[in-house]
Order: sequence, then C-alpha cells, then structure tokens
Amino acid sequence: MSTREDALALDAADPLAPLRDLFEVPEGLIYLDGNSLGTLPRAAAARAQQVVAEEWGRGLISSWNSAGWIDLPRRVGDKIARLVGAGPGELVVADSTSVNLYKVLSAAVALQRTSTRRVIVSERSNFPTDLYIAQSVAREHDCELLLLEDPADPDELARQLDERTAVLMLTQVNYRTGRLLDMAALTDAAHAAGALTVWDLCHSAGAVPVDLTAAGADFAVGCGYKFLNGGPGAPAYVWVHPRHADRFSQPLSGWMGHAEPFAFTTDYRPAPGIARYLSGTPSVLATAVLECGVDTVLAAEAYGGMPVLREKSLALTRLFADLVEQRVGGFGIESPREDALRGSQVCLSRPEGAYAIVQALIARGVVGDFRAGDAGAPDILRFGVTPLYTRFVDVWDAVEQLRQVMASEEWREERFHERQAVT
Amino acid sequence: MSTREDALALDAADPLAPLRDLFEVPEGLIYLDGNSLGTLPRAAAARAQQVVAEEWGRGLISSWNSAGWIDLPRRVGDKIARLVGAGPGELVVADSTSVNLYKVLSAAVALQRTSTRRVIVSERSNFPTDLYIAQSVAREHDCELLLLEDPADPDELARQLDERTAVLMLTQVNYRTGRLLDMAALTDAAHAAGALTVWDLCHSAGAVPVDLTAAGADFAVGCGYKFLNGGPGAPAYVWVHPRHADRFSQPLSGWMGHAEPFAFTTDYRPAPGIARYLSGTPSVLATAVLECGVDTVLAAEAYGGMPVLREKSLALTRLFADLVEQRVGGFGIESPREDALRGSQVCLSRPEGAYAIVQALIARGVVGDFRAGDAGAPDILRFGVTPLYTRFVDVWDAVEQLRQVMASEEWREERFHERQAVT
Repeated sequence: MSTREDALALDAADPLAPLRDLFEVPEGLIYLDGNSLGTLPRAAAARAQQVVAEEWGRGLISSWNSAGWIDLPRRVGDKIARLVGAGPGELVVADSTSVNLYKVLSAAVALQRTSTRRVIVSERSNFPTDLYIAQSVAREHDCELLLLEDPADPDELARQLDERTAVLMLTQVNYRTGRLLDMAALTDAAHAAGALTVWDLCHSAGAVPVDLTAAGADFAVGCGYKFLNGGPGAPAYVWVHPRHADRFSQPLSGWMGHAEPFAFTTDYRPAPGIARYLSGTPSVLATAVLECGVDTVLAAEAYGGMPVLREKSLALTRLFADLVEQRVGGFGIESPREDALRGSQVCLSRPEGAYAIVQALIARGVVGDFRAGDAGAPDILRFGVTPLYTRFVDVWDAVEQLRQVMASEEWREERFHERQAVT
Repeated sequence: MSTREDALALDAADPLAPLRDLFEVPEGLIYLDGNSLGTLPRAAAARAQQVVAEEWGRGLISSWNSAGWIDLPRRVGDKIARLVGAGPGELVVADSTSVNLYKVLSAAVALQRTSTRRVIVSERSNFPTDLYIAQSVAREHDCELLLLEDPADPDELARQLDERTAVLMLTQVNYRTGRLLDMAALTDAAHAAGALTVWDLCHSAGAVPVDLTAAGADFAVGCGYKFLNGGPGAPAYVWVHPRHADRFSQPLSGWMGHAEPFAFTTDYRPAPGIARYLSGTPSVLATAVLECGVDTVLAAEAYGGMPVLREKSLALTRLFADLVEQRVGGFGIESPREDALRGSQVCLSRPEGAYAIVQALIARGVVGDFRAGDAGAPDILRFGVTPLYTRFVDVWDAVEQLRQVMASEEWREERFHERQAVT
C-alpha cells in the first residue's frame, strides 16, 4: 500500500464497516489498545442507566427475580460460550481472571492428585498474573512450576511433557508478542502426555477463532474488558469441559455456587455443572454492561461472524507491520509475520525509547501501550486492532504519526519519559 | 406509641431526616430490606454515567491514570475504613465477601501453622457462604471446623476455645436474628486462648458502630451492597490489622496485589501492607458506584455520625418490635429486645406462613424478606431499617400492613405461596 487513499478504499469495501457504529469512538482518536481495554459500546450507557435507575432504584431487591439478575452470570456466560466454541450451560461469568485461574488450576491439580503428576507447565512470558496464581497453587499443592521458553511447537512441547506433568497452562495469544498458539495441537500434546490443559483466552476471545470443544480443552478462563468490550475491570469468565465439571468442587465455594443458595443450609453442596464455579454475589451492574460488550461481538454474526472478523484483523495487523517496515524502519517486529501465528496485535521493539515513543504517540492521538521487558525480553510497543471498529485508515494514520515521531525525534523530549502509575 | 401521628412527630423531630434526600426511594414503597440491598443513592446514576460515558468512553485506557482508576480500591477502602474503626491504608475494596473470606481465613490458618492449632471455630447460624468458605479452607489446610450454637457470651466462649483453636470466625450481626455480638469482648476471649479473629461485617458496617482497632481484631471482611448502599453485588472489602498484613502472602496472588504490577515480572512479590490482598483487575464501574453508597453513610458525619445513626436505628427497631407485639401478635420476636444486643433489623418467626406473609406484604408495598430456617431454626421474616432513609412512619405503616395481612388472612392465598428463584 502506498497512499492513504488505498487505505480509505479498503475501508469503503469493508463489509464490517457498519459495526463501528456500535461504538462510541472518540472523534479524532486512533485507538489501538482494544487488547487492553475495548472501546465503549453505544448500548452500554443506556444499559448502565437502566440497571442503576430502574432495576436497582425502582425494582430494588425484587429485581433479583423480575430483572433476571440471578441468571446474569449464566445468561452472559452462554453468549460468551458462542465466541469460544463452548456449549450453553458450560461457561459462567464470575470474578476476575486471576480468581478464576485459581479455581481451575486448583481443580486441574486436584484431578491429578491420585497420580504422581506434580508439575504445572507454563510459559515464561505468560501474562504475569497467570504465573503468580500458578506459583500460589503450586506452593499450596506441593507442585513444581516449570516455565518453558517457547511452547509453540507441539512436537517440541511433547518432548518437554512427561509422566510428572499435571497441567499445561497457556495463554492462547501472548500479551507481549501477539503470538497465537495452536490450541488443538498443543492440547493433543498435553493429553498424549496425560496432562490436563488450562487455557487463558484473555487476548484471543472476541478477536481470534477459539474452539474449546473442537480442541478438546479441559479448562479455560478469560477477561471481559479486552476484545469483549465489557468495560474497565469487567467481570471475567470460566469454562470447564462438561466431562470435568462435576468431578471437583473448587475451593472458592461461595454461596452462589451452591446447589440451592437460598435454602441457606449449613453445608456446602456444589451445584451441578459449571454453576459450582460461581463464588460470591456478582456485580450486577458490571455483568450487565459486559453483556453490551459481548453483544457487539455477536453482532458480527450477521456479517459473517468470526471468519470475517479474523480476516479483517489479519489484514489490519499485516498492513501495520508492513507499513512500519516500509515507511518508518528501525523497529523490530516482535509479532509473527505468518498470519496463522498472529493474534490481533502488532508488537514492536527498539533498543531504547519504547516508553517515550508510546507517550509521544498518545500525545498525537494514537493510543497503543507499553509493556516492560523482563528476563531478557525487550521493551514492547503494543498496537492492537479490533476488527469491529478499527479502520484501515487508522492503521495508515497511526504509522504516519509514528513516522513523524521518529523523524522529528520529539520522543526524546523529557515530558515523554515521565513514568505514570499505570503504563 | 398509639397513633400514626406519633410516628410522624418523631420524623419531624429527627435530626437525620435530611439524609433521606440522598436517596431515590420509590414513591409509596416502604423498603425494609436495606440489610439485603441498600437503596439507590441519588449520586449513583450520574456517577455511573460519568464512568461509562466520560472515563471509559472518552478517556479509555488513559483513565487508569487520569481518572484515578488504579487508586479506586484504596481510595474507597480508606472511606470504608472510617466506618469500621480502621486506619487509612489498612483496608481495600476487592472481589466478593466470599473470596475475601478465603484470603483472610487462609492467612489466619497459615499464621497458626507453626502451632498445633487446627480448629476453625464459628457459629452454626453464621451466614452460609462464610461456613462454605470455612469448610473449604479447613479441608485444604487439614483443619476442623467447629460450629458453636451461640457464641455471644464471652465467658462461655472462652470455655469453648482451647489450645487447638486456630481462628474464631464470626459475623458481628447475625443475618437471621439481627443479634449483635460484642466484638471487643469476643476478640479478647479468642486472643486469651491464642486464637486469631476473622470478623464478617456484612450486616453491621454502616448501621452499627464498628471499631476494629479498639477491639484489636485481626482480620475483617464485609460487603458493599447492604448498609453501604453500593448497589447489587457491589464489590466487597477486606481489612487486615497492620501487625499481620505483611506476615503472609494470601493465595489469590493476582497482579493487582504485586509490589510492582506494571513491572510485569515473572515472580510474584507481594505489595507491602493491605494492597497484597488485592487480586485481579477490579471492576471500575462497580467500585465507583460503591463509593457513592459509602459517601451516603459518611454524609451522616455532619449530623453526629454513627452515634446518632445508631440511636435512630435502635429507636426504629424497638418501635417495630413493640408495635408487632401490641398491634398484631402471633409472631415470635427473634431479635434481641435489649438494645445493646441488636443490630439494625427485626426478625419475626411464626409456625407457618412466613414466606407467604412476606409475599403478601410485598404486594402491599412493604418490602422485607424471607430467610428459610435450617437445623431446627424457624423460618424468618426479616425487616431491616436503614437510619439514613427509614422513617418512623414507615415502621408504623409496615406494621399496620402486617396487621391487615394477618387480620384478612390474605396471606393464605395461593399466589403468595409460589416460590421465586431468589427468596
């Protein structure tokens, strides 16, 4: 692509273009951070108002029945299930990703308790909270946590798993690099070794085809605030394959996971199926707003659904990487160039200035984010695309701004180097 | 009191009367269920709109810094701390009561690990989710859960605790009976036996004086949606006495409890102090709305604060119980008649029809709730008062409606016996 007009032409031909109207995208902003916090769905403000003013304000306690509050975790869970290849009644909205990971990792380790399997295998560059929770579960259950450098190759992975492996815990799309794992092949490799799998879908669900059932996965969790557009800190979700759901009572056994929460019995009796992965009382407001976000992704079904979203996402990220190389240069492209291996983001690296360059871009109205390197990994400039609302011209304009930031060397200005609380 | 005019006179003389204007109380409704879900604060709708439309919609990811999202759990926590006798920086908003109980019970048991103490002591009629979580923690840590029939008398309690007691876990106000425990005396008894204390403040904070520091308590949790008026399923909170906060890293070690969440390091390093009791990413919307509810209770400080709230609460519940006896009859009064032993609710019992009577009252615009009996305890009709917005005339009118429901026997109608999902 050699001109901005080419990008505009792609947008004019984009069958998904009408979906952008489902969102309140701030005028003049190029938002490439939907992989951190999705844009506001237009429906969300009215829905929040309805929950607050009508359901809470007027209905008060009766809304648990009359407004269906009690069913929200299951109802929104059923919608998310459609995006991740799960069946109805198999997935619930609950708590945070971290808390849900604790539930499913505890379950997976417990299901292996009768064996000698005492190793949880994950990836060194997994999202930190996943590793922190795994460290805790490993400590509690006297397990070892083994961190692989790169689990992407199923054959190589198969050689690293053995009769001591209890669980393989992976994130489908790496938060730092955007690398997409082959869930089915890696799950097969884990199962061949007798291990169970826990998949974190935070950076994949809603932007990448996910099929937990086809992959034969065992457990999955994911967050609501990235590609599901559920709002800041939206509730997360948890899925357990039906073959495991009734086999274990997860440790955060709060009353919402009880078979009869309103019988107020002294003894915990887990609900059948996934409902036992509920814990305490869920935030009604946050779950209702999350539903608006999930609905935006489901709205794409009328336009061809995930295959069309995926095609556009890949075209956007391919264009971004190509333009950075052709028109800017000087950056490492940390994301895989091969389509099949890439999620919905492009990550750049540079020996110096990554943080300041991100800040300088933000000052120009181009929002990506910075992720600090660790353990030899470089600092990263992250740019996510959300095919529901990101346009080809946004990609063109973002790279043009990056070109200007680098050409002018304005990123060297001191103001762009001041660290903020949240990076 | 012999006439409705007497009640109106009390309202006219009530110094707290202006606080009712902080709430959207539905016209014509007598709401005596603030102990289950507090009424909508007037400020909440606008605040929700601000978070959704402005902070999320326009600020997007930058609002983590610019709108102070990252500080919300601590900032709202500091406000709640003022209501429960805790210091700034000692309490955070996070997760649900159930999840927070799991954190603090795990911590308390772990702190006793070097001893032979292996018994968690609680009360058989504690709120079920507390018992369910305690069962789970006990199972995981090879402890025993001992349920007392009545822990109210410190001397009697002292005889039931011994060198095997690890933790005493109690709820300050019993959800079924409204009985208020003497936190300081019971904490002393526990400490004398070498046990740590975990207090659940769900039915006390915001309506009853609570002083964790003066009591020398060790751990506390509570919910945001009852007397704190934070909205349906509002986030909960957790407090750990500073002498314990740094001694243990709780098991739900998500990234928000890390010393440097945005350093993205591979190893978990707990934040100093109470921040390590944070886990995953919190719901910004739910926490911001909770703050509006907490602010309504803090607003009472200008009118004399908790002593004045408590005085009115006791006057309201005393009036309710007296009027039921004088004008209705036929009900057991399950709540203590002695002021010092009563929280902010009155619980009635009756050999039959409790559920239907509650439904018949709701049909007449008087909202209390039903709590099923268990283990020999009777079914309960619960009526909570919230001194911020409950009026004396509400109590008069509620009892008058109850009188009519009983006199007419309309509660025997079949429609009032149909069970709903949430009771």
